[in-house]
Amino acid sequence: MAKELTSREENYSQWYNDLVVKADLAENSAVRGCMVIKPYGYAIWEKMQAALDGMFKKTGHSNLYFPLFIPKSFFSKEAAHVEGFAKECAVVTHYRLKNSPDGKGVVVDPEARLEEELIIRPTSETIIWNTYKNWIQSYRDLPLLYNQWANVVRWEMRTRLFLRTTEFLWQEGHTAHASSEEAVEETLKMLNVYTQFAEEYMAVPVIQGVKTDNEKFAGAIDTYCIEALMQDGKALQAGTSHFLGQNFAKAFDVTFTDKNGKPDFVWATSWGVTTRLIGALIMTHSDDNGLVLPPKLAPVHVVIVPIYKTDEQRSMIAEKAEQLKKLLEDEGITVKFDNRDTHKPGWKFAEYELKGVPVRLAIGPKDYENNTVEVARRDTLEKKIIPQEEVVKHVKKLLVDIQDNIYKKALNFRNANTFECNDYAEMKDILENKGGFVLAYWDGTIETEEKIKEETKATIRCIPFGQQHEGGKCIVSGKPSKYRVLIARAY
Amino acid sequence: MAKELTSREENYSQWYNDLVVKADLAENSAVRGCMVIKPYGYAIWEKMQAALDGMFKKTGHSNLYFPLFIPKSFFSKEAAHVEGFAKECAVVTHYRLKNSPDGKGVVVDPEARLEEELIIRPTSETIIWNTYKNWIQSYRDLPLLYNQWANVVRWEMRTRLFLRTTEFLWQEGHTAHASSEEAVEETLKMLNVYTQFAEEYMAVPVIQGVKTDNEKFAGAIDTYCIEALMQDGKALQAGTSHFLGQNFAKAFDVTFTDKNGKPDFVWATSWGVTTRLIGALIMTHSDDNGLVLPPKLAPVHVVIVPIYKTDEQRSMIAEKAEQLKKLLEDEGITVKFDNRDTHKPGWKFAEYELKGVPVRLAIGPKDYENNTVEVARRDTLEKKIIPQEEVVKHVKKLLVDIQDNIYKKALNFRNANTFECNDYAEMKDILENKGGFVLAYWDGTIETEEKIKEETKATIRCIPFGQQHEGGKCIVSGKPSKYRVLIARAY
Repeated sequence: MAKELTSREENYSQWYNDLVVKADLAENSAVRGCMVIKPYGYAIWEKMQAALDGMFKKTGHSNLYFPLFIPKSFFSKEAAHVEGFAKECAVVTHYRLKNSPDGKGVVVDPEARLEEELIIRPTSETIIWNTYKNWIQSYRDLPLLYNQWANVVRWEMRTRLFLRTTEFLWQEGHTAHASSEEAVEETLKMLNVYTQFAEEYMAVPVIQGVKTDNEKFAGAIDTYCIEALMQDGKALQAGTSHFLGQNFAKAFDVTFTDKNGKPDFVWATSWGVTTRLIGALIMTHSDDNGLVLPPKLAPVHVVIVPIYKTDEQRSMIAEKAEQLKKLLEDEGITVKFDNRDTHKPGWKFAEYELKGVPVRLAIGPKDYENNTVEVARRDTLEKKIIPQEEVVKHVKKLLVDIQDNIYKKALNFRNANTFECNDYAEMKDILENKGGFVLAYWDGTIETEEKIKEETKATIRCIPFGQQHEGGKCIVSGKPSKYRVLIARAY
Repeated sequence: MAKELTSREENYSQWYNDLVVKADLAENSAVRGCMVIKPYGYAIWEKMQAALDGMFKKTGHSNLYFPLFIPKSFFSKEAAHVEGFAKECAVVTHYRLKNSPDGKGVVVDPEARLEEELIIRPTSETIIWNTYKNWIQSYRDLPLLYNQWANVVRWEMRTRLFLRTTEFLWQEGHTAHASSEEAVEETLKMLNVYTQFAEEYMAVPVIQGVKTDNEKFAGAIDTYCIEALMQDGKALQAGTSHFLGQNFAKAFDVTFTDKNGKPDFVWATSWGVTTRLIGALIMTHSDDNGLVLPPKLAPVHVVIVPIYKTDEQRSMIAEKAEQLKKLLEDEGITVKFDNRDTHKPGWKFAEYELKGVPVRLAIGPKDYENNTVEVARRDTLEKKIIPQEEVVKHVKKLLVDIQDNIYKKALNFRNANTFECNDYAEMKDILENKGGFVLAYWDGTIETEEKIKEETKATIRCIPFGQQHEGGKCIVSGKPSKYRVLIARAY
């Protein structure tokens, strides 16, 4: 096999990179830190977009589009936001090139300097709230429930395909409300949408919670998040939803007249997920043979591979394969029939395992005679010979089974790697040697948070929702603590 | 009516701007030349995207995504391309901001200067062909049939909402082929896809042709285009498809081994349409009352407006309206029931005329009694009382009729404003006083082309396909000419 992967055990990080590149999902581009998302990877993103966009619309949101550029001065208007976002940004300073005087190529025209530099959006709160100012006068104009699908740029020093890239694709929802309660409700509603998407579509179990003040979005009152556990025991933040209070309304002077005729600042939320979800998808389910994709997001559900020796066999089997393909497609299943004679069946088997196609059907001369088909499922690699007339029913069931099975497998893995821990030395040992989620009491101080980070390279991922227990003692300081927090090393 | 438009006759340009803003399609942003596409405008773009994307996929294309940034040096590699594109561009020179020493806001960190400046893509041929180099070795790797949906930036001095903006949204197809014939075939295939989209979805009749050398894409061998005629007699280029020959393959050294084992440069095409199509849509069909939208691209097909005096009437009519809405939605029709009591029916009528909703249903107390509904069509403003049980059938037919009717109306307008012209003085008079398309013989020289442009402010839009005639004399020079060319002032 030409495309052999590094195994996860040998080098998890290398395995991931190999997989992304060899399964044709993405590659590094000529621009440092930026990736090319290849057709197979982009097809997964399109499936994600379609599912999420449907959920956004169902919850009353519409899409719109704001400019790529943000005037530099906008960033300084919200005090916390500027600290968090106006640093590692791509800055446009000029708007023209000219022929180089030496005749070699082009140079920046010094005459074409912008009066005010433009920042490529790292996130769009500032330009959006500067605009909402003109859209909102009265409570009757509220709520605004808008979202945009866009590219954003954050100048990252260390980048990794999908997980952290200088330019990435995302959606950013920006809503405006007449009351704090309604804005908080929206924030949590969208966190639930993300949770449902992660669990039902990506088959990735997630833990919901709220970020510590130290880890929250720059400009937010509260940042809620969902956290997933990767196979190497590291956490990955899979979506955030921010309650922004009146911070951006105050910064951009966005007021409304309430039902009683009283002016007030508008309440805000923002929420987003990015192409890094593709990284989460890969690292949750895939194995040393390649990708394992949840059927709901797989660009191809079923591949049919013919096995033949003679031309006659080839054409007989092809006819049967085309019939099957048609029957499956009638059920809304995406099918690829790989009838190329330039590659052997064994090569094709490996190729589609690498690409994570959930179900493989193989038809050989014996199957032709016996009216059977060999069905293989990607997640467990199990194979089964079944009568041809049962294939459609079987495949339909299998796609549901695979979606369920990989979710359960990931959930079991997470449960097996989540540790309630009351001893700091034990926690350090877990984080250093085993990985996983640690649930530990924390005294709520930034000092303790920083100490944990420094000494374990792990961070407080969130304060998980729904804790029933009575509280205990901080794992570091021994001071009283109300809640356990979720601690892990993270992507 | 608060939102009265300037009439087309009074000031066509002002009418267009009024309409875009008042119908809530888009507005200017805080960034010079960049627009905010508002939800109603973006919903039209989403409909356009869905239709086009389906057609691209049906013709074998896949989507992918290349970086926003292009290294400056890439532009210099293709001689003609650099002249056309590497001029009015947004240039990123720095990657960091820092707090201003005076404590006021942020400034560009002079330490964070990029070694090589990055250009925000004005079009992506260069970075794509630099990448294709690694994807293509043999004829077996061909064709590559890829497309991306993206934002691009061209630093325009004079901008107009949708028609010409510094940042705009578009799709750009970039295909690679093993032969010239196949690439030309692809170029024309995609021109036909655009034509079909313009005529069948947008209801905008277009003329297909090839650009003159002077007007073709920088780096193309041939640029094919579709040209539409707006109501003010000006042309609008509604899509281009370029046969790039081996120009970009040579510039980026992209070769392949053909079936005979011989190396050759790869053949290329590129093709694109942009958010300016929304401008074309508006200017083709709309009238002094507002937008007229083709049902196939209208975000809302039907609006139901209740007419009542008492609360009892309101609730009885609402029940009926909800039933109707449900029945229509079951047929795939998008329906809005505007039951707000904050606005009068007359206000709503005007509002949905302004927004171009193709069909309006009004239900008043009399209708309730008689089991009837008033149906109004936006294109002709005709109203009709019809029995309630016929509404679904009637509306379905009406949506088809409106789509057909506005296409025919636009086609009639174009035919009435297309002039075969053999006299230069006459042509000048037409272009100056009447507007429209002029078909005239041209001697094929750039001198004549420039003279026409200078003296009439009109350009040769294209050399239309399928000319049967025998040739004649150039309208300017009197020299022999094979074809008539399409001449018009243009957006």
